[in-house]
Amino acid sequence: MSLAGKVLIAQGGGPTAVINQTLVGIVLEARKFPQVTKVYGAIKGVEGLLNEDFLDLTQETTHNLEQVALTPSSALLSTRVKPDSKYCHEIFKVLKAHDVRYFFYIGGNDSADTVRIVNEEAKMAKYDLRAIHVPKTIDNDLVLNDHTPGYGSAARFVAQAFTGINLDTRALSGVYLGIVMGRNAGFLTAASAIAQKYPDDGPHLIYLPERKFNTDKFLGDVKRIYDRLGRCVVAVSEGIKDDSGIPILASLLKDIDIDSHGNLTLSGTGALGDLLAQEVKGKLGISRVRSDTFGYLQRSFLGCVSDVDQQEAREAGERAVQMAMWQDLDGSVTINRTGFYSVDYRLVKLEEVAGKTKLMPDEYINEDSNHVTDAFKYYVRPLLGSGLQSPALLRAPKVTKILRGE
Amino acid sequence: MSLAGKVLIAQGGGPTAVINQTLVGIVLEARKFPQVTKVYGAIKGVEGLLNEDFLDLTQETTHNLEQVALTPSSALLSTRVKPDSKYCHEIFKVLKAHDVRYFFYIGGNDSADTVRIVNEEAKMAKYDLRAIHVPKTIDNDLVLNDHTPGYGSAARFVAQAFTGINLDTRALSGVYLGIVMGRNAGFLTAASAIAQKYPDDGPHLIYLPERKFNTDKFLGDVKRIYDRLGRCVVAVSEGIKDDSGIPILASLLKDIDIDSHGNLTLSGTGALGDLLAQEVKGKLGISRVRSDTFGYLQRSFLGCVSDVDQQEAREAGERAVQMAMWQDLDGSVTINRTGFYSVDYRLVKLEEVAGKTKLMPDEYINEDSNHVTDAFKYYVRPLLGSGLQSPALLRAPKVTKILRGE
Repeated sequence: MSLAGKVLIAQGGGPTAVINQTLVGIVLEARKFPQVTKVYGAIKGVEGLLNEDFLDLTQETTHNLEQVALTPSSALLSTRVKPDSKYCHEIFKVLKAHDVRYFFYIGGNDSADTVRIVNEEAKMAKYDLRAIHVPKTIDNDLVLNDHTPGYGSAARFVAQAFTGINLDTRALSGVYLGIVMGRNAGFLTAASAIAQKYPDDGPHLIYLPERKFNTDKFLGDVKRIYDRLGRCVVAVSEGIKDDSGIPILASLLKDIDIDSHGNLTLSGTGALGDLLAQEVKGKLGISRVRSDTFGYLQRSFLGCVSDVDQQEAREAGERAVQMAMWQDLDGSVTINRTGFYSVDYRLVKLEEVAGKTKLMPDEYINEDSNHVTDAFKYYVRPLLGSGLQSPALLRAPKVTKILRGE
Repeated sequence: MSLAGKVLIAQGGGPTAVINQTLVGIVLEARKFPQVTKVYGAIKGVEGLLNEDFLDLTQETTHNLEQVALTPSSALLSTRVKPDSKYCHEIFKVLKAHDVRYFFYIGGNDSADTVRIVNEEAKMAKYDLRAIHVPKTIDNDLVLNDHTPGYGSAARFVAQAFTGINLDTRALSGVYLGIVMGRNAGFLTAASAIAQKYPDDGPHLIYLPERKFNTDKFLGDVKRIYDRLGRCVVAVSEGIKDDSGIPILASLLKDIDIDSHGNLTLSGTGALGDLLAQEVKGKLGISRVRSDTFGYLQRSFLGCVSDVDQQEAREAGERAVQMAMWQDLDGSVTINRTGFYSVDYRLVKLEEVAGKTKLMPDEYINEDSNHVTDAFKYYVRPLLGSGLQSPALLRAPKVTKILRGE
């Protein structure tokens, strides 16, 4: 096949540490094909698609592209706009006006849905267009994917953060709560488990949005660990909900009953951690309680990246172009695990991925709903990549006391 | 000189990424001297000194010590206890009982004061003791030191975090507030400036505790940047204070006037960022405003370390032993800059460092009190070490619009 015309690429949703690897994989691979007349990049996702804000990536040096590939966050910029059918219809008109014949959209399940609708517009208009969705999301919540590009690097950040926090809390005691991204899927929070090396290492407790969160149960869990070790490190997903499905942040705020004069809304990022810390301080009487909300650090931190994630993000982009060019296909690229540890890439129908959310399977969550299983560690470890440092504790013998003889 | 007896080492205050380099530098160097009968480590700083909780580090393998050196946080554990004279007197009795003749305490200016008092106890008792303070603090606030071990690695974390945050905010617009540690000295917050590579890169504003913080001035600064760029990245020190020296956190809380029923105290770590974000949202009408409080991540994050910092922390420990053994001296080890970039180590009197705090000099802060100068960048850059990744932006030309022709 040699459908001639332009390639257009966009990046959607939240940035990741490796989304530019995918972009560069597409650009460099597409520039090899003679039927490709130009390679364009849309600025700010669907906003750029609507407004014809394009960069001509045919005129970008290979050297700078390789540097961009190593740079976190979306080099084409992004948007949170979720286009409706009318919006997608306008996008299609733009693609047609520019003779775009290959459309690649790197994003999550909302982005897959945009590709699906634009593709249907093209079919209805009998306009020959190859439309491909390429996965990315730190949440790891795309169905039919073993995992998604971006997750491995964010998971590595979370594991490295909790490794340090575990050592810090070991040195100074107390309770530590780390709030991790993930509104519905707990994969990123669960990656904190890789921080456990020695038997009494934290995180000692992990709370995921896949299980109902009960504050009394949580306090009991913390007390049990703290009484035994004198410290307790907890990983909490920002998306934890109570029995009725109400986010814990909202239900804790209600209990506390703030008279805010209409001014104070505690939706700032630190609020959930601070409120849970208040509960621990107030109800368990533990004085040293700290909470950190990992926030934006976990998805864009410079230099914390999984080499496996980098390679897969790059290949997903390359394979997307190859499948469009050689096999004349539309669809969504998926990553499939074939061994320990190996993957391949397949194309599935856009409607199979679009708008759907994958959650942590039951076998990855422990019975008590406050930690992960070994099956999850086996699943996640390869995704974090090579060169993950292993911390070491002193193992020297204790000295016999003289003045305070035991 | 060959004063025979034991070596005792302790670590005080907050952990850093390289405090174990100093510990291991002392242990390995001390084990070379024949007059050293044993090398002990006190568990939990002064608490271990009081309670005779010692590890016999003479019986620790060199291999494991080298692994511990690479591990963040205090391997001997730490404490926030600040001993008084009576406490120090008890410590001296313990040192004497164990025939400790060389006492090394790795810590900040409070730790230096503990060494000073213990040393005076020894002199009064005519007990021959070499007492040496070895510097560490991420705050970089020890006088007579060009900088302190631990600062470079924490500064590298802050620079890497803001590099990513700058790219993230570039992709999705809005205002971002990053709250950085530093109650009195702004060195760590100031290191965020290294994230600026391209002319419009953030952090666009940096607020330090060395200057009075005025909320209206802050809002004006943010508005000016946001109007020009559509985004604004701000680094804020946790220790910023108003005209009367009251922490901004406290003064903002007062304005908001919460009816807490005696329950709600917003002293959790996310509070300052959340409150400043509320101000920006409410008074500037900007909808996308995010804040992260870097919290404990910045001092213990695994694998984010400056090689320069590692090397200096190690050498400071080695030199401490050498000065005690070969030159029969007491004092505080200091790092002195001798070139761009080279250092040497000197010993100063304990009372010259103990209990004193170094702040950012005026020449490092801009006239408008909302950023740093090039002099500061020249000062700080070598401390962050080698291999700091440089992010890259796309520089491809824009494509001419067809439907929405300009």
